Amino acid sequence: MTDLTTAMTGLGRRARAAASALRQAPADARTRALTLLSEKLGDAQDDLLAANARDVEAARANGMSEALLDRLTLTPARVAGMVEAVAVIAAVPDPLGVETERWTPANGLDIARVRTPIGVLGVIYESRPNVTADAAALCIRSGNAAILRCGSDCLQSSLAIAGVVAEALSEAGLPADAVQLVDTPDRAAVGLMLGGLDGAIDVIVPRGGKSLVARVQAEARTAVLSHLEGLNHTYLHRAADPDAARAIAVNAKMRRTSVCGATETLLVDRAAAESLLPAVAADLIAAGCELRGDEAARALVPEMTPATEADWTTEYLAPILAVRVVDDLDAATDHIARYGSGHTEAIVTADVEAAERFAAQVDSAIVLVNASTQFADGGEFGFGGEIGISTNRLHARGPVGAEQLTTYKYVVRGQGQIRP
Amino acid sequence: MTDLTTAMTGLGRRARAAASALRQAPADARTRALTLLSEKLGDAQDDLLAANARDVEAARANGMSEALLDRLTLTPARVAGMVEAVAVIAAVPDPLGVETERWTPANGLDIARVRTPIGVLGVIYESRPNVTADAAALCIRSGNAAILRCGSDCLQSSLAIAGVVAEALSEAGLPADAVQLVDTPDRAAVGLMLGGLDGAIDVIVPRGGKSLVARVQAEARTAVLSHLEGLNHTYLHRAADPDAARAIAVNAKMRRTSVCGATETLLVDRAAAESLLPAVAADLIAAGCELRGDEAARALVPEMTPATEADWTTEYLAPILAVRVVDDLDAATDHIARYGSGHTEAIVTADVEAAERFAAQVDSAIVLVNASTQFADGGEFGFGGEIGISTNRLHARGPVGAEQLTTYKYVVRGQGQIRP
Repeated sequence: MTDLTTAMTGLGRRARAAASALRQAPADARTRALTLLSEKLGDAQDDLLAANARDVEAARANGMSEALLDRLTLTPARVAGMVEAVAVIAAVPDPLGVETERWTPANGLDIARVRTPIGVLGVIYESRPNVTADAAALCIRSGNAAILRCGSDCLQSSLAIAGVVAEALSEAGLPADAVQLVDTPDRAAVGLMLGGLDGAIDVIVPRGGKSLVARVQAEARTAVLSHLEGLNHTYLHRAADPDAARAIAVNAKMRRTSVCGATETLLVDRAAAESLLPAVAADLIAAGCELRGDEAARALVPEMTPATEADWTTEYLAPILAVRVVDDLDAATDHIARYGSGHTEAIVTADVEAAERFAAQVDSAIVLVNASTQFADGGEFGFGGEIGISTNRLHARGPVGAEQLTTYKYVVRGQGQIRP
Repeated sequence: MTDLTTAMTGLGRRARAAASALRQAPADARTRALTLLSEKLGDAQDDLLAANARDVEAARANGMSEALLDRLTLTPARVAGMVEAVAVIAAVPDPLGVETERWTPANGLDIARVRTPIGVLGVIYESRPNVTADAAALCIRSGNAAILRCGSDCLQSSLAIAGVVAEALSEAGLPADAVQLVDTPDRAAVGLMLGGLDGAIDVIVPRGGKSLVARVQAEARTAVLSHLEGLNHTYLHRAADPDAARAIAVNAKMRRTSVCGATETLLVDRAAAESLLPAVAADLIAAGCELRGDEAARALVPEMTPATEADWTTEYLAPILAVRVVDDLDAATDHIARYGSGHTEAIVTADVEAAERFAAQVDSAIVLVNASTQFADGGEFGFGGEIGISTNRLHARGPVGAEQLTTYKYVVRGQGQIRP
């Protein structure tokens, strides 16, 4: 066994032990840990900024791009953002111990379905230091122990944050090992986590770009909660309100083009293309968006470049939008079924029946009616935060907050029943 | 591509297409298919028995053991059992389209969580022909398409049953491809299913012995709903009612020793061992059970053979019971945490507080108070049947009925909201 294997196995064993304690800790203790964490992160601002400055300096010396440096850099405002994010999670109703169902079948047993933590989560992310605080907070709220593996570029920042997490846990009477950060930049640690650390990790959550997620999906020997792509569609139905169509299309694409909830393809009903598309396209172009259209779309908006088949399958994460004119609602949902990634789709329509048909036909994690796809977010769903968004078919779909990080057990209360 | 690969890929593609149709079919059509299936299985009794006779004859010629021949053999009573099982599933409330939650966060969006099918299930089982009918019925009820792979020994019986399923589906206006049986005994088909058939299979349910489940867990590239073992414990607490302790211990072990809900280890509180154990042991021995005890247990019941460490980790599935005297409730739950498989555990006690503490501490899919572990069964839970029992930490735990074969999507109704 290498030193790294020994170290990682120990991390797994400690996480498993901490998970058992955390699972049985009262909600108050977990809330207290979160409140303390929020306060202590604020108090530690200078230390966090100093640690982060070391990461930024090293990254700059290694030639990191300005965009990535921006993600990596902490500022007082960003520390305040972490403080606030943890405070919000502290205020989320505790999901554990809640009876989600209770019934008595013919045998007279009193059966309750009770929420419990999953166990141990492995979170693998890149160089956003705030994920360390976010992920720790969601795990504490949901009673799961966490093994966090950050990108090596943000290791100093993450170690500083993880130190504050450990203090908050201890002060609340919870095991400091409930949240552990892998403290080595050795990339082999990721492979070991994907192997499950001898069964210590129940589920891996990859949080980062497509190549990270693809690797985790391909190699993990544990369950994975993730989405590979947000290839999302906004469909302007023939009965769309023109103002809503313009506002939603622009927001869905351009509010932030790099998020997984951004719309990548705009579908427009043929019957309304002439009346809707020129104005929508003008707004998008004015906002700085490049449009790639099919023939029918280009006939109405000559500024568009021609779309090819590849455009229907590309998650741009950039100010580029594919535009296609479709015959009707069925053609729109057929396009989505064929090219979509099952993440988030929206219809804009004033026709309630069409909206309900779209919602029924589309088999994605989130289907929106008359709203921007950029609402695909745990905070917007009222979850207080999210560890990611799932396009899994099993367990959690859509934003994954504290409640979605739980499982359940059945507690069955009898009066001496034996089975005939 | 081999012929088999081509054939299996085609099966996957047809299943995926059928899943889309089935997902959008009304509950009435699925109920109608189930009612028809139940009726038609009864009508087809002679054909089913004839097909089964061919399987039994071939198996006998191949030297199959009497125990396995018994599992393979259909009788009029067993056909009636299938008819009844499908009728019960037809009567289960349809799980699809149900809103399990609905709320409005601060952004004013109306968010509904709605149950939807998972998609396509792969069911891999051994030589119990009735599983073909059971699995088909649960998939139809839950709106999932199914690819069924039976043991080669029951292929003729299963083909006959699958023919009736296809008729029932067609007559109800549903795609016959919603339930497909792999019609070749070629064992390579299992490997292809475990590979997911180009993403066509969302989840595999193995139903059979430990070696089958272990292979599926090790090799599947899809999600798996399963349990490897039911290493279940019954704990006789110091405040156990003596009569309940005797009745439950005997039933939990001996009602049927081959089922996954059978108790494999009996834990007895030291404080009550002297008063409880001799009578409980006498009942078990009278029922034909071999007892393997630790030193303290053997001091009270000399008929026991000595238990070794291996006995705490053995799922006997036979009339053998490991018996251990434990210091107290914490020692009992520690033993369960160390040796259990997370399936089903029971406490027998008249002390409500102890019962609740046991239920909170034990982290198994099913925790019973004053009832036999043999209630670990979808039918007993009121699910109308089960496709298996899961010890997964994600998605479904415990008995997996129609509702547990669903996932959900979020349908979000807005009034033109864009995200700031």
